[in-house]
Amino acid sequence: MVKDRLDPWGSDAVKDYARLQAEFGIEPVQPLLTRFKRLSPHLSRGIDFGQRDLARVLDAIDGSKPYAVMSGIKPSGDFHLGTKMTADDMIYFQSLSRNATVFYSIADVETYSDNGIPFRESAKTAVKNVADILALGLDPERAVVYFQSEEVRVLRLSSTFSKGVTNNMLKAIYGERQIGLYMAALVQAGDILMPQLPEFGGPKPVIVPVGADQDPHLRLARDLAAKHHEEFGFIPPSSIYHRLILSLNGDAKMSKRAEGSLLTLDDPPVPSSRKVLGAFTGGRDTVEEQRKLGGRPEVCPVYDLYRFHFAHDDGHVERVFTECREGTRLCGGCKQEAAGLVKRFLEDHRKKRDSLMNDAKELLAKSRNYLASAGR
Amino acid sequence: MVKDRLDPWGSDAVKDYARLQAEFGIEPVQPLLTRFKRLSPHLSRGIDFGQRDLARVLDAIDGSKPYAVMSGIKPSGDFHLGTKMTADDMIYFQSLSRNATVFYSIADVETYSDNGIPFRESAKTAVKNVADILALGLDPERAVVYFQSEEVRVLRLSSTFSKGVTNNMLKAIYGERQIGLYMAALVQAGDILMPQLPEFGGPKPVIVPVGADQDPHLRLARDLAAKHHEEFGFIPPSSIYHRLILSLNGDAKMSKRAEGSLLTLDDPPVPSSRKVLGAFTGGRDTVEEQRKLGGRPEVCPVYDLYRFHFAHDDGHVERVFTECREGTRLCGGCKQEAAGLVKRFLEDHRKKRDSLMNDAKELLAKSRNYLASAGR
Repeated sequence: MVKDRLDPWGSDAVKDYARLQAEFGIEPVQPLLTRFKRLSPHLSRGIDFGQRDLARVLDAIDGSKPYAVMSGIKPSGDFHLGTKMTADDMIYFQSLSRNATVFYSIADVETYSDNGIPFRESAKTAVKNVADILALGLDPERAVVYFQSEEVRVLRLSSTFSKGVTNNMLKAIYGERQIGLYMAALVQAGDILMPQLPEFGGPKPVIVPVGADQDPHLRLARDLAAKHHEEFGFIPPSSIYHRLILSLNGDAKMSKRAEGSLLTLDDPPVPSSRKVLGAFTGGRDTVEEQRKLGGRPEVCPVYDLYRFHFAHDDGHVERVFTECREGTRLCGGCKQEAAGLVKRFLEDHRKKRDSLMNDAKELLAKSRNYLASAGR
Repeated sequence: MVKDRLDPWGSDAVKDYARLQAEFGIEPVQPLLTRFKRLSPHLSRGIDFGQRDLARVLDAIDGSKPYAVMSGIKPSGDFHLGTKMTADDMIYFQSLSRNATVFYSIADVETYSDNGIPFRESAKTAVKNVADILALGLDPERAVVYFQSEEVRVLRLSSTFSKGVTNNMLKAIYGERQIGLYMAALVQAGDILMPQLPEFGGPKPVIVPVGADQDPHLRLARDLAAKHHEEFGFIPPSSIYHRLILSLNGDAKMSKRAEGSLLTLDDPPVPSSRKVLGAFTGGRDTVEEQRKLGGRPEVCPVYDLYRFHFAHDDGHVERVFTECREGTRLCGGCKQEAAGLVKRFLEDHRKKRDSLMNDAKELLAKSRNYLASAGR
């Protein structure tokens, strides 16, 4: 039987998270929850559902040992709510220990090969993206932010890896693709494994928070870590997977490619809140029916807004869920409330972000100096 | 009808140079010879036989316009006589005009992906290789020497190109290969086109001297130059092709892979001259037969030593050829003479090379500073 492939480049959703675990070997997060001193909303709300080798990172936290938090962004447009998910996880794992260092890759190489956006253009987008992450809470003191296209170690590693990898290996993981996408995949593997190079203190646990659809990149990086263990001493990178937020039009993945399906952190607050008012919901055809049967929060992008991002706390999420299921919460009022939360968040975020643009440039400059001075 | 492919990674010879022209569109050098102020031995002896767009470089020379001479070496071992061919051409084209700049790539990425030699090891080999070229006559004042693995522009260009290239394009040029070899090919295309980036003065004619078996890399680079013309203004690179020197065991290509088939510039002079004495020749089975029928210089690696590298001048080459054909020159004496020439050359070269090791390091350091300070 041919197993399904996860496709990080497509817009197809990961529909069945249980099957993900069974077929791809992603382990549940649940049994490890007691080991966290403090749960993030992603953990307490079951948004982060799967992991590989997460225990290794928890061991490092417990033992006050260094570990890296690795993630990246494609600077192909504005920071949207899907991107915020990864950023939130990254910031959370940075906050769990003073021994954590964030490596944040601005994937301009992939943005070029995937979206055709030239480097000089994505470089501008990137500054704003970095300000967004700072506004979300990244500690710049323990963060290294770099452009993929400038980081010779990443590109060199990708060439190194291209030796160990066979076309069949890549086909098995990604399917039959054009070489540009395979190359981008090898560059990403370079990103993921770079924090373990000698100039950054050598092999260490690395946690990579990603959407479940990105797991193929992790499998590739783990295969390559094993293949090149003798030369580099790589430890297989750990990963934690979050569910994908529903698109405002009800599609399974919020995507930069489908206009109107997504909210970005750069959207003007008022039109954004209007987008929420016009969103698809899990409501019934009539108010009567809804009062009788209750709504369906499990397919509702508005419920996802509360759960993934904008609820005040876990209790708030539960309240929305229960009221919806019981039929006491109707879509009109629920959307009004969500729109208000979105509007307020975007207003606050915009202010913070705008005030952090210089900090973003400084972090990029500081990182560039640091990387240039690190021995090779 | 399926056309044959040239294979730069194999050891198969290019047997029929006329077919090369007919099938691959490589033009003869001959009609352009009158345009050179001064012929190199490679040109006067018919060793450089083919070209693409060579006239464009001759125009630049005539018009005192800038052009680049681009070549590279795989630092996978010592500099052998095949490598010296390319170096000789490069040095010749540098000497034809004050407006020529040499870009010399130390292809450590390809050396890793093709031969598995780690970067730190190939870096050592490279210093000696650079000293070899200096000893052969490279002018360090107008030369930029860089490591592929350190030059972010090359690696970035290769990623850029990976977008424009399709698997079918690569298969048509190189056949079905592992991705590592495709990636190395794209990196080489980055080497070939880098001299035309804005920070090096923008689009300009570039001459790439190579063995005929390397033509696929040129075809790829020319295709990519056309595809990315709008973005970069690339002019298709020009090339000049030299015949391949026969291996000492009579095989068609002198290769680092076949022990005893090659002479390197690092070989101790005395054992080297002994290698020549033991070489395959184009002689007949008996002395009598040879006196009667004459020898076959066209299949003789010892004749190639005279013609390609060690004869005093063109007249010397012709004399050896004629005497051999007429049966007045026998293999024993001919090999003795060649062995003496080889021994003397290697002794002289070794002295020069050893005295230039510091200059090689300086050229590498100077190039590194220059490249780091060039705007990006």
